[in-house]
Amino acid sequence: MTLLSFHTAGESHGRGLVVIINGVPAGFKIDLDAVNTDMARRQKGYGRGGRMAIESDRALPISGIRDGMTIGSPVSFLIENKDWENWERFMSADPGIEPGKEVTKPRPGHADLVGGMKFGHRDLRNVLERSSARETAARTAAGGVAKELLRPFAVSFISYVSSLGGVDIECNDVPLETRRKNAEASPFSTPVPDRDEELKALVDTAKENGDTLGGIVEVVVEGLPPGLGEGVRWDTRLDGRLAAALMSIPAVKGVEIGDGFSLAGRYGSEVHDEIDRSDERGFYRTTNHMGGMEGGMTNGMPLVVRAAMKPIPTLMKPLWTVDIETKEAVSAAAERSDVCAVPACAVVAEAMTAVVLTDAFLRHFGGASRADIEERYHQYLERVTSF
Amino acid sequence: MTLLSFHTAGESHGRGLVVIINGVPAGFKIDLDAVNTDMARRQKGYGRGGRMAIESDRALPISGIRDGMTIGSPVSFLIENKDWENWERFMSADPGIEPGKEVTKPRPGHADLVGGMKFGHRDLRNVLERSSARETAARTAAGGVAKELLRPFAVSFISYVSSLGGVDIECNDVPLETRRKNAEASPFSTPVPDRDEELKALVDTAKENGDTLGGIVEVVVEGLPPGLGEGVRWDTRLDGRLAAALMSIPAVKGVEIGDGFSLAGRYGSEVHDEIDRSDERGFYRTTNHMGGMEGGMTNGMPLVVRAAMKPIPTLMKPLWTVDIETKEAVSAAAERSDVCAVPACAVVAEAMTAVVLTDAFLRHFGGASRADIEERYHQYLERVTSF
Amino acid sequence: MTLLSFHTAGESHGRGLVVIINGVPAGFKIDLDAVNTDMARRQKGYGRGGRMAIESDRALPISGIRDGMTIGSPVSFLIENKDWENWERFMSADPGIEPGKEVTKPRPGHADLVGGMKFGHRDLRNVLERSSARETAARTAAGGVAKELLRPFAVSFISYVSSLGGVDIECNDVPLETRRKNAEASPFSTPVPDRDEELKALVDTAKENGDTLGGIVEVVVEGLPPGLGEGVRWDTRLDGRLAAALMSIPAVKGVEIGDGFSLAGRYGSEVHDEIDRSDERGFYRTTNHMGGMEGGMTNGMPLVVRAAMKPIPTLMKPLWTVDIETKEAVSAAAERSDVCAVPACAVVAEAMTAVVLTDAFLRHFGGASRADIEERYHQYLERVTSF
Amino acid sequence: MTLLSFHTAGESHGRGLVVIINGVPAGFKIDLDAVNTDMARRQKGYGRGGRMAIESDRALPISGIRDGMTIGSPVSFLIENKDWENWERFMSADPGIEPGKEVTKPRPGHADLVGGMKFGHRDLRNVLERSSARETAARTAAGGVAKELLRPFAVSFISYVSSLGGVDIECNDVPLETRRKNAEASPFSTPVPDRDEELKALVDTAKENGDTLGGIVEVVVEGLPPGLGEGVRWDTRLDGRLAAALMSIPAVKGVEIGDGFSLAGRYGSEVHDEIDRSDERGFYRTTNHMGGMEGGMTNGMPLVVRAAMKPIPTLMKPLWTVDIETKEAVSAAAERSDVCAVPACAVVAEAMTAVVLTDAFLRHFGGASRADIEERYHQYLERVTSF
Repeated sequence: MTLLSFHTAGESHGRGLVVIINGVPAGFKIDLDAVNTDMARRQKGYGRGGRMAIESDRALPISGIRDGMTIGSPVSFLIENKDWENWERFMSADPGIEPGKEVTKPRPGHADLVGGMKFGHRDLRNVLERSSARETAARTAAGGVAKELLRPFAVSFISYVSSLGGVDIECNDVPLETRRKNAEASPFSTPVPDRDEELKALVDTAKENGDTLGGIVEVVVEGLPPGLGEGVRWDTRLDGRLAAALMSIPAVKGVEIGDGFSLAGRYGSEVHDEIDRSDERGFYRTTNHMGGMEGGMTNGMPLVVRAAMKPIPTLMKPLWTVDIETKEAVSAAAERSDVCAVPACAVVAEAMTAVVLTDAFLRHFGGASRADIEERYHQYLERVTSF
Repeated sequence: MTLLSFHTAGESHGRGLVVIINGVPAGFKIDLDAVNTDMARRQKGYGRGGRMAIESDRALPISGIRDGMTIGSPVSFLIENKDWENWERFMSADPGIEPGKEVTKPRPGHADLVGGMKFGHRDLRNVLERSSARETAARTAAGGVAKELLRPFAVSFISYVSSLGGVDIECNDVPLETRRKNAEASPFSTPVPDRDEELKALVDTAKENGDTLGGIVEVVVEGLPPGLGEGVRWDTRLDGRLAAALMSIPAVKGVEIGDGFSLAGRYGSEVHDEIDRSDERGFYRTTNHMGGMEGGMTNGMPLVVRAAMKPIPTLMKPLWTVDIETKEAVSAAAERSDVCAVPACAVVAEAMTAVVLTDAFLRHFGGASRADIEERYHQYLERVTSF
Repeated sequence: MTLLSFHTAGESHGRGLVVIINGVPAGFKIDLDAVNTDMARRQKGYGRGGRMAIESDRALPISGIRDGMTIGSPVSFLIENKDWENWERFMSADPGIEPGKEVTKPRPGHADLVGGMKFGHRDLRNVLERSSARETAARTAAGGVAKELLRPFAVSFISYVSSLGGVDIECNDVPLETRRKNAEASPFSTPVPDRDEELKALVDTAKENGDTLGGIVEVVVEGLPPGLGEGVRWDTRLDGRLAAALMSIPAVKGVEIGDGFSLAGRYGSEVHDEIDRSDERGFYRTTNHMGGMEGGMTNGMPLVVRAAMKPIPTLMKPLWTVDIETKEAVSAAAERSDVCAVPACAVVAEAMTAVVLTDAFLRHFGGASRADIEERYHQYLERVTSF
Repeated sequence: MTLLSFHTAGESHGRGLVVIINGVPAGFKIDLDAVNTDMARRQKGYGRGGRMAIESDRALPISGIRDGMTIGSPVSFLIENKDWENWERFMSADPGIEPGKEVTKPRPGHADLVGGMKFGHRDLRNVLERSSARETAARTAAGGVAKELLRPFAVSFISYVSSLGGVDIECNDVPLETRRKNAEASPFSTPVPDRDEELKALVDTAKENGDTLGGIVEVVVEGLPPGLGEGVRWDTRLDGRLAAALMSIPAVKGVEIGDGFSLAGRYGSEVHDEIDRSDERGFYRTTNHMGGMEGGMTNGMPLVVRAAMKPIPTLMKPLWTVDIETKEAVSAAAERSDVCAVPACAVVAEAMTAVVLTDAFLRHFGGASRADIEERYHQYLERVTSF
């Protein structure tokens, strides 16, 4: 039920990740540097563990792009794991791997235990290798391609951290473009520059305590035409699609659109965005509490989505668990990990949002080639502006 | 990518709604009274408008059930609109309907305007008839069947209103069974009995002011085996599926699993549910901040999901809008509507949760017949308990 | 992965059939008489059994059509079974049906036995009620809507019986429009008028012998633009989609596109359709051995598909089988049935072809409204003609 | 709607092919040598062109397999194109490729022209690189994994060429195991050894004439339990799924199940497979005209499917076409190609059949681990044997 879709494969310490992106029309310029910039953004942020220094991800294009342009066939990338040579003997597909990296102490908050039960694994590494958030590198590459497909239509993406470790970063009065620049310059991806010292102290303290932090990320998308998404069916509504995409990011436990949960406590007369009209803009809303989404469709206002990330579950001050072999209470495995990865989550949320929106865009405009899609886009825009 | 799925059709003032439920295995008892009880629950609640008195929904079984049992073919229902005879002349499929019910004043917060743009409708009734929340009657019937399929496995559903109009209803210390009984007895579906007077005053005031209210609903599911959901792919994770299902409910703008957004502000050491084990229960968590979901799979603890419903957008004290014909600023259409439908939203959220879980259950156990599924269920439960 | 799709439900002797058609854009005129004409065509043909006299199917529109036009929401129909009052006591959804219609003697060639095994049914009526070809009435309604959606684009469908009981009906030299008229006038849906006496004798003989006949049906579609279908992925190729749709028709055991199997025995130089060009037509093929399909896409030539229908498996001179209760060899149940239903198969094949093509058409042009789709269609046609 | 599915990407002269296989349960041994043996089988056969000597495909495992076993995560392979270094400057994803390999003379019978129209390409290389049958190498790897998943259940696959260039190879009286051995030993994959000289002469003559040949391939699968496939819905029937999978193979224009088209010309009493029963086998058919498939489900008899392959469209004695730039009639491009690839088609047909069957198997038995699936398989088999 999707036109643009992607599939990822790959383990955290395997040979690498692959991603196949289906449904990419022909004739779109793909700036691989832009894709790799997102890959790098995902690896940054204060509070990341040692691995981010080892891996410097590059999306190696395998197919679907020629001479810098999409050709209409599936786009695929290989993202090699730089550490493979050290892990090959533990992770090889061939029979006869070396013992020494088995995991039997499931970490609370991870897939370890329940994945072991489901798949019948006694070595929980067989679970955690895939459930690792490393998989989001592949999602980021897919999102990068999706953003390139929307670029000719002046759709722009902004993402940042709006709360970290309980510190809320207010930015409603800050222009979107400023938020973006601030977020890019900040080690915490904050949309305003003056809270970073506070956050640094917070993260440092958490690190000293062997603890971890979560936060909230916000994605804002400008330039979307109204009418994307199919509100007439429950499973094609754009709000549901976005919620699925964001909630599927590892560690995300909540998703909001527009003012989200806070809408539940207010009067209807306060929150519904009144409709106005001018000859230049056509119809528009005077406010945007709904976050650009009504009836499961975009309404032409900026799309605003938020995702809540729980604290990273791998703690250096580990939690109690039970060894699946000895059945004894033990400390959970304390692997090298991050104290805080909320800035990375913002990049991934942006990527997932981009994929969902590009799919809805292509459903709306159809078309196999950029020329067709552009012509249709302009006609539609004219039609709805003069509605 | 689903085994159990459903499709609905039907307009709010059309002949009725139909729902087809695909993937129902054979041999399951379907208590149609239980399904219709959910249909009735959806129509109840203090603050509903006049229509709820007109319609008393019954799911008329068309197929898939014989002699009270599923036979393996698609289950379908027709839910007739009782008011059809008064609307036939405005809504008939035949050419030549009578003028008189056209809508040209789009309501803020509804699909009216953007739907008109997307589909090219000048009569916005062509949009609002389908985007009406009446469609959730069909979802409720589907959810009712899903719950019947899980009943032999002692999976039980509880849903209630945990916040209404800004009034939070604390119930963490109330046993689940008590919450259910309270909610069933309460006109506000509250899990504790002592807040209803307060809520009644709130709704009455809103009604006097021509205003509307939203709220938050919570669904708790007990008895799920661990390992449902497929965490290894982004689009098959159970958390994403649940988020899509809940966010697709009309007026829902936020979804949480477990402690949700509040997790974002706490330390990892505070929120991750430590693992313990006893011979009778096997592995379990000592707390349930994650809401029964880790790594995109159920973990054997109660599943807890929440959805935030915005206030109903149809106000008797209408908002400003622009007439699509005259292009003049006007008051939005003020149709007969509800002041508050949060209790109904709880029923629909329960139904959508049931469909998603039953799908995950059937993916896990496969099988076309109840006998096979039951045998497999017990074997799996034994295996994971002794893991 | 489809834009237009449909779902059916309903048993042969149940209350009726329902069909939901998803993905129907707004603004298309639906001639319900045309849909019902196809319903009637499906019931005709020399050699049908008594039931065709009982049922005179009408597709009752439930949703998605208003004032003779689609409105963008799912289209649904209810097709009532006229005989329901006689069957209700054997088929009711309520518990406590009357004994007397159980089936324990599985018919060779039907789903009876294997369906009983799969679902664990001891009364094989629980299988045969759904596996009955009566379900194709619902497919025909869906196909009727699909054809209405393609009508504004001058896409026309022709279907006929090209072989019956081993008698091949040559018609390569007969103009398509003549084939259609002949087929409509013929009780055997033959594209030439002079073979019907021969076929009548064949069917009469088979009937006397308690035997049944099969045949081959052909569907030709004119007016399709080139480029429908997505050849870049195995599961979106239009040839594969067509094959699935046709092979899924009950009793169909073979599918061909263009010259099909006969291509396998010829030289490449003989069968590939050479490319020519004129200013009016643009590029075209000088022959059409490929049946309008190259590389999994339409190529602008008429689409030609064929399906082979096995003889109906319910024989009045029944085959040997084994009673599932007594385990004794017995004669298979000999229910009232048809001697030959190949003309009906042609109608259903046409319907299935229409659904698949309309889906591909909508994928190519996108769009939620007829106005958008028409504009895009004409632009595309101009572009490919001047390619 | 599938549990096991795969996605391929990659161009014929690009860096390579990738394939991601979703839905692979944990705990299954994957013999990579067996997979690569199929890869090699696909490249063999008398009449192949020069490229088969260049490429010696190996499926490099990227993910999903560890220590020779599946771990429950997506399985992926990279199949490198050995000739990449010679093609990189013409095919690179980076902007600025070297001119010199443009194609403007579309070949009849290929996707070249219609793909160019659809995607708006002036260099038809952008089409033919993906529509090339090289993509079937990736399918073969997917099929190899699928076969490994069915191996513990004693499901065995046999494929061979049953007709080549019009020469039919009768083998009905030859035991299946003998057919397999003969086919493996034959350069034409024929199930009997005594026709190869005749075929060699045929191919040699075609080659001398610059012509090409097609043929028919047959796949037989033994050991399938009854009841795979879901007959109650048109789009989940196993016959439709198989037809889609086979018809999607490049150059395939016809598909049959069991006796296929020849059934259309016979009496019902001649072809329906009568049912018998013994205590050891349970129910079985005394013949197998239906090819192991009734009502859209397996019936426990060997599955028999056939696909007709048209002659390869790239001729050394090229057909007439029109240059898309000059608009002049020219000879089609005559690239290095095969005279006959029917033996390769048999391998690919086997692979596609294996994927579809494995998907149906996993839908039926569910389960995430081999241990669960095996237990369920044996219980089901016992149940249907004593039905």
